[in-house]
Amino acid sequence: MTVSLETARALVADDLAAVEKTMQKAVGDAYDPLAEALTGLVRSGGKRVRPMLTLLAGRFHPPDDHEKLISLAAAIEALHTSTLVHDDVIDGARLRRGRSTLNARWTPSSTIMAGDFFFARAARLVAETEHPRVIQMFARALEVIVDGELRQAFSARDWSQPKASYYERIYGKTAALFELATQSPAALGAAPAAHEEALRRFGYHLGMAFQIVDDVLDFVADEATLGKPAGSDLRAGIITLPMYFYIQNPKRRDQVIEMIESRPTGDPIVDEVVALVRESDAIDRAMDEARDFVNRALDDLAPLPAIPARAALADVARYVVERTF
Amino acid sequence: MTVSLETARALVADDLAAVEKTMQKAVGDAYDPLAEALTGLVRSGGKRVRPMLTLLAGRFHPPDDHEKLISLAAAIEALHTSTLVHDDVIDGARLRRGRSTLNARWTPSSTIMAGDFFFARAARLVAETEHPRVIQMFARALEVIVDGELRQAFSARDWSQPKASYYERIYGKTAALFELATQSPAALGAAPAAHEEALRRFGYHLGMAFQIVDDVLDFVADEATLGKPAGSDLRAGIITLPMYFYIQNPKRRDQVIEMIESRPTGDPIVDEVVALVRESDAIDRAMDEARDFVNRALDDLAPLPAIPARAALADVARYVVERTF
Repeated sequence: MTVSLETARALVADDLAAVEKTMQKAVGDAYDPLAEALTGLVRSGGKRVRPMLTLLAGRFHPPDDHEKLISLAAAIEALHTSTLVHDDVIDGARLRRGRSTLNARWTPSSTIMAGDFFFARAARLVAETEHPRVIQMFARALEVIVDGELRQAFSARDWSQPKASYYERIYGKTAALFELATQSPAALGAAPAAHEEALRRFGYHLGMAFQIVDDVLDFVADEATLGKPAGSDLRAGIITLPMYFYIQNPKRRDQVIEMIESRPTGDPIVDEVVALVRESDAIDRAMDEARDFVNRALDDLAPLPAIPARAALADVARYVVERTF
Repeated sequence: MTVSLETARALVADDLAAVEKTMQKAVGDAYDPLAEALTGLVRSGGKRVRPMLTLLAGRFHPPDDHEKLISLAAAIEALHTSTLVHDDVIDGARLRRGRSTLNARWTPSSTIMAGDFFFARAARLVAETEHPRVIQMFARALEVIVDGELRQAFSARDWSQPKASYYERIYGKTAALFELATQSPAALGAAPAAHEEALRRFGYHLGMAFQIVDDVLDFVADEATLGKPAGSDLRAGIITLPMYFYIQNPKRRDQVIEMIESRPTGDPIVDEVVALVRESDAIDRAMDEARDFVNRALDDLAPLPAIPARAALADVARYVVERTF
């Protein structure tokens, strides 16, 4: 069975359009030429998985003021987009979603400022919820995200790091924001604690699965699908789950280190390493873990009322592990 | 008469110590080696003018929970410090407050992340106030600050910009945060609207004066006083008020453009231009404007009750224009 995001998207289509409009408005009045660049960035989109999650999670206990849910969803996507802008400077990435990054077109300085600007707008949007605990969750998620970036930078090319450090990193990179996306609308709508916790756990597990699949795709998908070159993590020395599994065999590990780090020419042969990992059992092992996280996410939904949003959240979860194969 | 900050500082000494402790704590548990670097950054200090203003402004209508005022003051100083970290990447600065910048010791990527991390902590600290309007003010100030950075970048080497654009830029660079520092504690303490507005205007006028004096110092002070090379604005193509006044004379303007931009060797002779401006009437004209702003700030204090904090705020204002000469 192929699962798509379309049913889930249709359920919150009007709200998603409102989120889009809010985001466009948030960058449209920026200082030129920033406004143009950021408007382009917002328009280039992405799947809008995070605001979709926020809008669906908000259906269980809708807040009194629906506009605040829209602001919250827009804030979360704006935070996501602003972290991508800084990530692209940090990674020196030149392509994202098949388009050239701001980083490739601007100086690092301008790109830092563009990220800061977008982030400032995200902060204003979340402040519009006027909900202290939601705002605190947002601030805490930001901390975890930045902590994840730092852990990623400082663990690069550490070929003997434990699996736990990979999980910590992808929590910061992805799951913290998914968790925020599903928990914060529950807090905004004053949901009972058990429902808020169920939604938080759902977001967490889904986010972990989502990032593992992303990391698998970086090995198995082609550049056209990815919108950026394959093997880009490895090129940056980032060790993700498929590589972690691959190098559990000491012979393979020595070979990888030799191919990546010890080339006499100084030119790592990443493409060949990517091919080795792709053809190994490491991909299946990583996908098994992703499926495991998705199953946990599906279980998390049990305590919630069986409204259409619950089925839609389950669809989103199943989509996450099926989108590749 | 020489005015110092000491009386003002003594009045809120215990609170300032609490702010310092809160800031240390906010960075102390960061991921190593970030914690060490950020702790050093916090310890290297600065004059703590902004938290002092917040603590003094908080004396007129103290909030029910004094801890929230401490969090707010720490959040404002943390926001200030985090913007300095990004500024140093943007400007390529290698020295600040007489110490090497993070930027000089780390890669730009690590420095961006360090700034983001510190900023995330600032956001958490302000969220601890649990005061929606205070948080909104904070988010709005952040927007204005980033907008100011962008205006500065995009107006570099524009030798015919109007004076208004300088004022817009220094509002973002400095006055917006001073305004936040004095207005937000009034909001936190539920001060009457007239007092909140008086404190907001005081912070605004003081911040404008403070930045003009900073810009004058960049021409007249030596490297030992500045903690960084003189003429650094000009080196970055940033046109500040003394330079604005200097180039109102078309002959001088042509000469400056020639010296900065049209050197056959490509090596601008900044030191000589700095000397020309220093010896001209431009410095006095800029200082007259700074004094004007300080006088307005002093007038702003009139509607406030005559408690010791009011005299201390007046001291801080007078100090701002006297600290140079």
